[in-house]
Amino acid sequence: MALFCLMLSPSLMAQEHPGIMLTKKNIEAVRKGTLTYPLLKKSWLKVKADADKALTETIEVPTPKDAGGGATHEQHKKNYTNILNCGIAYQISGDKKYAAYVENILLKYAADYNKWPLHPKRKENHPAGRIFWQSLNDFVWQVYTIQGYDMAYDAISPKNRETITKGLFEPILKFFTIDCKDTFDKIHNHGTWDIAAVGMTGYVLNKPEYVEKAIKGSAKDGKTGYLAQIDQLFSTDGYYTEGPYYQRYALLPFVIFAKAINNFQPGLKIFEYRDQLLAKAINTSLQLTYTDGTFFPINDAIKSKTYETAELVYGVDIAYADIKAAPDLLDIAEKQDEVVVSDAGLKVAADLQAGKAKPFAYRSQLIKDGSKGNEGGLGILRYGSNDDQQALLIKAASQGMGHGHFDRLNLLYYDNNTEIFPDYGAARFINIESKKGGDYLPENKTWAKQTVAHNTLVVDQTSHSNGNPGVAQQNYPEILYFKSDKNLQAVSATERQAYPGVQMTRTSALLKVDALKKPLVIDIFQVLSDQPHQYDLPFWYKGHIIASSEKISAFTDRLIPLGTKDGYQHIWLNAEQPVAQNTGYLGILNNKRFYTVHFASESKLNLKILSLGANDPDLSLIESKAFMLSVPEAQNQVFFNIVETHGNTNTISETTTGATAMVSELRVISSSKEQVRVSFKVKNKPYTYQINYKNKENFIKLN
Amino acid sequence: MALFCLMLSPSLMAQEHPGIMLTKKNIEAVRKGTLTYPLLKKSWLKVKADADKALTETIEVPTPKDAGGGATHEQHKKNYTNILNCGIAYQISGDKKYAAYVENILLKYAADYNKWPLHPKRKENHPAGRIFWQSLNDFVWQVYTIQGYDMAYDAISPKNRETITKGLFEPILKFFTIDCKDTFDKIHNHGTWDIAAVGMTGYVLNKPEYVEKAIKGSAKDGKTGYLAQIDQLFSTDGYYTEGPYYQRYALLPFVIFAKAINNFQPGLKIFEYRDQLLAKAINTSLQLTYTDGTFFPINDAIKSKTYETAELVYGVDIAYADIKAAPDLLDIAEKQDEVVVSDAGLKVAADLQAGKAKPFAYRSQLIKDGSKGNEGGLGILRYGSNDDQQALLIKAASQGMGHGHFDRLNLLYYDNNTEIFPDYGAARFINIESKKGGDYLPENKTWAKQTVAHNTLVVDQTSHSNGNPGVAQQNYPEILYFKSDKNLQAVSATERQAYPGVQMTRTSALLKVDALKKPLVIDIFQVLSDQPHQYDLPFWYKGHIIASSEKISAFTDRLIPLGTKDGYQHIWLNAEQPVAQNTGYLGILNNKRFYTVHFASESKLNLKILSLGANDPDLSLIESKAFMLSVPEAQNQVFFNIVETHGNTNTISETTTGATAMVSELRVISSSKEQVRVSFKVKNKPYTYQINYKNKENFIKLN
Repeated sequence: MALFCLMLSPSLMAQEHPGIMLTKKNIEAVRKGTLTYPLLKKSWLKVKADADKALTETIEVPTPKDAGGGATHEQHKKNYTNILNCGIAYQISGDKKYAAYVENILLKYAADYNKWPLHPKRKENHPAGRIFWQSLNDFVWQVYTIQGYDMAYDAISPKNRETITKGLFEPILKFFTIDCKDTFDKIHNHGTWDIAAVGMTGYVLNKPEYVEKAIKGSAKDGKTGYLAQIDQLFSTDGYYTEGPYYQRYALLPFVIFAKAINNFQPGLKIFEYRDQLLAKAINTSLQLTYTDGTFFPINDAIKSKTYETAELVYGVDIAYADIKAAPDLLDIAEKQDEVVVSDAGLKVAADLQAGKAKPFAYRSQLIKDGSKGNEGGLGILRYGSNDDQQALLIKAASQGMGHGHFDRLNLLYYDNNTEIFPDYGAARFINIESKKGGDYLPENKTWAKQTVAHNTLVVDQTSHSNGNPGVAQQNYPEILYFKSDKNLQAVSATERQAYPGVQMTRTSALLKVDALKKPLVIDIFQVLSDQPHQYDLPFWYKGHIIASSEKISAFTDRLIPLGTKDGYQHIWLNAEQPVAQNTGYLGILNNKRFYTVHFASESKLNLKILSLGANDPDLSLIESKAFMLSVPEAQNQVFFNIVETHGNTNTISETTTGATAMVSELRVISSSKEQVRVSFKVKNKPYTYQINYKNKENFIKLN
Repeated sequence: MALFCLMLSPSLMAQEHPGIMLTKKNIEAVRKGTLTYPLLKKSWLKVKADADKALTETIEVPTPKDAGGGATHEQHKKNYTNILNCGIAYQISGDKKYAAYVENILLKYAADYNKWPLHPKRKENHPAGRIFWQSLNDFVWQVYTIQGYDMAYDAISPKNRETITKGLFEPILKFFTIDCKDTFDKIHNHGTWDIAAVGMTGYVLNKPEYVEKAIKGSAKDGKTGYLAQIDQLFSTDGYYTEGPYYQRYALLPFVIFAKAINNFQPGLKIFEYRDQLLAKAINTSLQLTYTDGTFFPINDAIKSKTYETAELVYGVDIAYADIKAAPDLLDIAEKQDEVVVSDAGLKVAADLQAGKAKPFAYRSQLIKDGSKGNEGGLGILRYGSNDDQQALLIKAASQGMGHGHFDRLNLLYYDNNTEIFPDYGAARFINIESKKGGDYLPENKTWAKQTVAHNTLVVDQTSHSNGNPGVAQQNYPEILYFKSDKNLQAVSATERQAYPGVQMTRTSALLKVDALKKPLVIDIFQVLSDQPHQYDLPFWYKGHIIASSEKISAFTDRLIPLGTKDGYQHIWLNAEQPVAQNTGYLGILNNKRFYTVHFASESKLNLKILSLGANDPDLSLIESKAFMLSVPEAQNQVFFNIVETHGNTNTISETTTGATAMVSELRVISSSKEQVRVSFKVKNKPYTYQINYKNKENFIKLN
């Protein structure tokens, strides 16, 4: 923290414009780059086309009225994009018509802003903005707008600059720091956006007071503010506790404000702060994607979000240009197919053109949660090239605040560039006004957050921590083990708090055996309890069930819900079969590949086939299917599952290979607090697989 | 027919080997081409890799035992592919090890073939083969195998050639022409494969007798055989009555045998036969695809089949090289990413490399059915570039024999490279042995063929022609009108036989109005009846319902089937709402675009929300959803529907535009035998749309 003592000496406040993503000293180089480097050229032409389009349209600054997705909401979002694009277009082209757009629209905002009270609509449980229904959107608006203003600055008359400052930016600074003080000082991503907006505005308007507040909090004591946010919101591994979807959202204000700090006060060495935390956070965001670019959708998440998102275009460009020029970041930039038209984007585009890219290095890793790195984490196991990769994720992180789901020890499995055992993500149609203004739907609470919506254990049809976020926030699973050898990758974690008197331990591995091309998923879920309970282990799957050990007879003429609460009320029970000898398999065909799920249970087992959609009068739930390993009553219990990934069917050439599963004879041999032993065969070769929970040196033993 | 009198004079029978796809005189050029032209090189390297792989494996010629998808079935399929690949590899590389593979495996077949009785498994309702469970597969086997033999011929010792001929090919010729005589003389695609196998074998073995039978039928009277098949199986527009999926399958033996005829007996000018019918058939196959490459899946069809299928690689290469070098065929060849390593493939690859390709010219067209072109047809309307095309298909073709579905006036709609209102296709998991050996499932009859599985009218919950294929085969709809102007494309057809006393007329159009970017689908379904009936018009849709005029309240705690028979037993009724004033809309979000379906009905209307899966104990049905416009009782009735395609939501950038529908106030003004008048508004501008059924000069009038 010592280095921050020298901050904010006025002499450090450079006052050249522009000074954030594009800087005056680099303008000529970036201009030249837009003619030279394909990706920068393409990105610039898109910005220019959007700016040109903006110029053809009448400037509209409507009185705020609509919720998310509505007309005034979308118009104000469009306006900040236009302001930014026109700012860039002015700098690159030198044509003042673009600056005039920025000037005119900001004059309009300056004329009206003070007339706008708090937004008439209110996003549930969120403080209102003045331009938008939640203040968060106002902060975002300003982060973009201040950059556009900074870029158009030189072309705006001093008189108009003053009008804009007095009529718009100063009231905004006041609103953001005083009216929204609670948010400004909250260690939370909304706070980060607020801070970044205030800090960047402080730099551009040369108001050091606001910069200082942004960095050190309202009280300037460092207990809140930007640095406190970096300290507390990210784990030592750069993981943001709400999960990947919000991590990428939270990231933008962090990195863009860091860029501003670095430009205006390079002596602060902000990118070095907390052992290069921001670089870790960017890289971890990328490590939290599957090879198709989508973020692992744990907790509240929009599932189609990928690293192509603007936040990570900024993140990757800044990480590469300003922190560390790792050649595998260029692979991501290439897939993003866009750079920020900026100093950083210039460097990325130039190096891409120079052929420096390497495939993004996805790693098997344990990403620890908690500001001290001791609040559980995510175990990610990967095998295979980026073209055809198996990825297994075990969620043993902390609750993740308000956007957290009740899914301790949840398992996600991906393969062949698609989801095999997915997570539902959030129940939300983002930006679709007819679906509750694009906000989270009631089913987000009644369904998406509930344990049974995930691939983990439900005890007595009740969600973890009884679905109480306050309780869940107070504890986290313990990571017992992580290993990432080539032929045996494994993660083991235990959860003691989700249910009183019940200890759940999941140990999941990717195990490569010689006889098979692809590793097996070996998943052992042990439950130790002081009382008997019902144990349900659902696997939400994609694809189609094409084979099963038990003859399944689905209900033909009537469907009823699986239960009455905690998400069970949303599930139709399609079939229920007792499993002979408590062991069997299901064959699933997904994206032309076969997944045979072998399972064995210590206790009497029923197989339930499920689909989503009960108690959904508004048709808000997305089609989903599961099979559930259901133990009606047991005290201690082991679920032993093997997912065999095999074969191929080509419906174009009409050929099928490797359709027959090679794994057989799963048995649970023994289970205790210290150890679980199971056995199985692969092409008739027997294996014994033993987990020694208390022996980290020899945690998994395979014979 | 006169030109065929000169056929089969022995002097015409060239006896150079190889002589079919690759010919001796072109070998040097093709070899050079594999070094020069990227697509030929790539295709050759794939053949070579497959051939090399075959050489590393033990030759296995198992005694036939398994059904489709099973081990012996797949092995024999693999064998013919290996024989073909090794034949090509020998010709291109000159390395005799490849020819030795062909020699050795064929000697094994020659040693065993006569010991094999009819296949022990039997595909339901299909004559058995000896290598496979249906004779069709045997024919296909021989079409490929004889080519491989032809290519390896020069390297096989005369003694072994004789062993192979006596032990394998002569018994095959006997089996195909005598044991399978019924099929050989049947005007049906199985017959075509039989004929092609026999004819090609006749050429290669220099047995003119078999060539003559193949071309003119067993009796050599031309009433059956190849020419009769060309005459009768294809319509004047080159449409094959079973539908696109079988058209592409039927096509291969037609074109490959034509290629053989053209090589051995060029004087027959087979490609000119019936006004270049084969060229038309190839082009029509391509016109029967959407821009994503998939065939329109009407009748029994595997939905993921695309023009990348081997049959169309042959078709496109031969069409381009031997019939007409249309540059837009090169676009398809490029998307196929493969050519046949052959004389034809050489030309295609060379011209592609020379930059001669043009985008495939998808056309709006009426494809007539029936050998005289008077048995109805398919109306295909298209708008937009190949990158983002709206395509509307109205099925008013004849029944299409055994693979036909009961779906007169079925409507399919595609947009944005995806299905909007799909067809279910066949209920079949092809090549998946656990699903009835990969054969058609019972649900193909109980569900996929039934009328309610399609987007067309069901009267009194009963399928067209009462689901009787014999009855349905006897008649066909009448095409009333077809037009393909840029701003108004329309097809109108009427069906009088599906239900006694009921005349159904559907008139569907793509109408471009100035105020909207994309044409509207205007769909008017008129029913005239002598009795009151229940009328159900389902639309199976993809995507998710996000808005509706009526408040929909889906059933929450119980689902029951919609009916008891004709497919209704497979449908769950999710919701049912009366429609106020008999007009309303549903908003659907699909692949990030909005589809608002506006509807108005002449009679009292209920809206039903449906999903597939009832009475499906084996979990064989694929998830599907529909909304149904249901009139509980009416005599005459008009359904007036407008599909508005609009806007965009981007879940990566989290922006939405054009979400609000602009069409409103649909009204059915009047309806009679002569005329239907309806009205609607677009952005409050009123339109009147009038269909004059009896006036082809002024069929549709828009004011």
